[in-house]
Amino acid sequence: MTTDENLAAVVKTSQGDYRVVVGRGVIDEIGPEMKAAGLTGRAFLIADVAMFPQSVHEAHEALEKSGFVTNVMTLELNEQAKTLDTAQEIYSWLSEHRAERVDTIVAMGGGVAGDLVGFVAATWLRGVPVVQVPTSLAAMVDASIGGKTAVNLPAGKNLIGAFHQPRLVLQDVAHLATLPEREMAGGFAEAIKHGLILDPQLLDTFERNAAELQRLEGDLAVQTIRRSVQIKAEVVSADEFERGETRMLLNYGHTIGHAIENVSGYGKYFHGEAVAIGMMAAAGIARRLGMIDQELVDRQRNVLKLYDLPVTVSGVTADELIAATKTDKKSRGGSVRWILLEGPGKAVVRSDVPEDVVREAVEEVIADS
Amino acid sequence: MTTDENLAAVVKTSQGDYRVVVGRGVIDEIGPEMKAAGLTGRAFLIADVAMFPQSVHEAHEALEKSGFVTNVMTLELNEQAKTLDTAQEIYSWLSEHRAERVDTIVAMGGGVAGDLVGFVAATWLRGVPVVQVPTSLAAMVDASIGGKTAVNLPAGKNLIGAFHQPRLVLQDVAHLATLPEREMAGGFAEAIKHGLILDPQLLDTFERNAAELQRLEGDLAVQTIRRSVQIKAEVVSADEFERGETRMLLNYGHTIGHAIENVSGYGKYFHGEAVAIGMMAAAGIARRLGMIDQELVDRQRNVLKLYDLPVTVSGVTADELIAATKTDKKSRGGSVRWILLEGPGKAVVRSDVPEDVVREAVEEVIADS
Repeated sequence: MTTDENLAAVVKTSQGDYRVVVGRGVIDEIGPEMKAAGLTGRAFLIADVAMFPQSVHEAHEALEKSGFVTNVMTLELNEQAKTLDTAQEIYSWLSEHRAERVDTIVAMGGGVAGDLVGFVAATWLRGVPVVQVPTSLAAMVDASIGGKTAVNLPAGKNLIGAFHQPRLVLQDVAHLATLPEREMAGGFAEAIKHGLILDPQLLDTFERNAAELQRLEGDLAVQTIRRSVQIKAEVVSADEFERGETRMLLNYGHTIGHAIENVSGYGKYFHGEAVAIGMMAAAGIARRLGMIDQELVDRQRNVLKLYDLPVTVSGVTADELIAATKTDKKSRGGSVRWILLEGPGKAVVRSDVPEDVVREAVEEVIADS
Repeated sequence: MTTDENLAAVVKTSQGDYRVVVGRGVIDEIGPEMKAAGLTGRAFLIADVAMFPQSVHEAHEALEKSGFVTNVMTLELNEQAKTLDTAQEIYSWLSEHRAERVDTIVAMGGGVAGDLVGFVAATWLRGVPVVQVPTSLAAMVDASIGGKTAVNLPAGKNLIGAFHQPRLVLQDVAHLATLPEREMAGGFAEAIKHGLILDPQLLDTFERNAAELQRLEGDLAVQTIRRSVQIKAEVVSADEFERGETRMLLNYGHTIGHAIENVSGYGKYFHGEAVAIGMMAAAGIARRLGMIDQELVDRQRNVLKLYDLPVTVSGVTADELIAATKTDKKSRGGSVRWILLEGPGKAVVRSDVPEDVVREAVEEVIADS
């Protein structure tokens, strides 16, 4: 088993506890870690074809070395492919290889790989074990932890899904070396969000060490990812099924963020970019409601810009964005629930935001054309 | 709320406890029962188009009378329609009506309605409440209880699914009045199975009162369905995720039963009919292993025949059936796990059955052509 300096968190859930391991080169430990998690049977490694073949090969070798008979499938796992049709392709492959309930699915790739392959694991034979090996920063600090799985419908993102906790999450920081810059930025948006809503110290770290963190150098990058992972793990352990408000805090910036993705057409803005703009809109709302002052709004804007994230959106209207928020699945009984800051590292849920306040704040993040 | 004489069982699960209510005319109580289960929001009633429109209308009225704003969708929910494509049709409808997490899906129809609509409820927005209103005998005594949901793949039945416990199961015996005879017989197969594996008294009741039970007359029919429901509820409460062997006992007759359905092409034999034949094969195995004597085999054959169930299969070979058992999802690490009787009302799991014993027993249930 990995020396426990790499253990970022243990997530506690009704389906059992699981380890989140974060470090450089930890992919070599996947076999022992899986065994320690009680996994036996065969491994079905399903990887995004966009991954470097070398990384998939290394994972495959590490599994076989530990005695896991392993089948590998690589396929396109981008947002456009996050459909039931792709799920069906994977089901067919599992069926051909007679994957059984004792076998383990290993999902390797970015957020789409985790969501889609996680959904397949949740629903194949009514649920088989899954190990998440996220290879994008966004998937590491956010999507890979917490058991949310999802598939898109033409009508909207993530409308279909299930809660299915992984048995292990293994994050190899070395995988980030080849990640495109815009994707790194998107990941930083989620990590910075954790600081904004729950950890003022983490926010500080992001503000003070932008260049070093962006280059992923030294221990600081690994430690900062670990800290961000811990926050996510704590929230998930406290509110596994998003029944209370705790887990909902993670959706800071997501109401307008989802609306931007929806209205712009998926792909124009990366998820993290849309969330960054969404956080700016939410900050505008909070300021108008007197919850925070302009200084925190500016601080948020500055840290996002340091990580090359957009803070305004173009090509959409306020009307379109506001209409789109109303179909968001986080609305309850028709009213939109906003996650708003009360201070650095402190967020709350509010469902009583007047529409004119929303409109002003949204207009503020629309770039002049 | 229904007077509790209609309460057949309370199922205890990690997702919460729920009532199974069985009686004549209990559909009128659906609104108060849903409220007592803590359900609010709107109702999305999804019914098999094969149901009598009158029954769907009554359910709709009963919901509206209790203040549930209700949308109704009727569609073909037979075995051929138990696909991801049909699920996608329902997702689209839910999306059009903006069904939210606080809303409730009501699944009304036979086993396919429960499985497929249950799967949609398990996966829509990562899980919304579902109320099961089974209208076939098989669905009542078996599939509606326990939270198993499923969809077929071309490669096999029920390969995709999820565990998603209902919030309420409401069984109106009046719905059985219009059920075709063969479907009734199929339901009796599952109910008799409960007696064979776990309750010798229930087995007695089926043997002594066949005519009365088949006519669904008087209290005895309702009580017998309730008792059968109780057995299923107890097993599910003891082994929610089919991790131990308890729940597996319910698969008595299913290994060969599934093989028969698979090899014959779905539809030639109803599920319950295939299970009846499968139980005869399993009894033949148990007798050959010295676990039971010929008398119990004959007793089982006789009670199945009393309820117009087949005890032999035609048009298939032993080779085909045995090959098909090996793809069954209940096999573990390659070896087939058999549910076998040790006596009336007593069953066990065995994975050490020699193939020649299986072959002899299977050949015995193949009708001479």
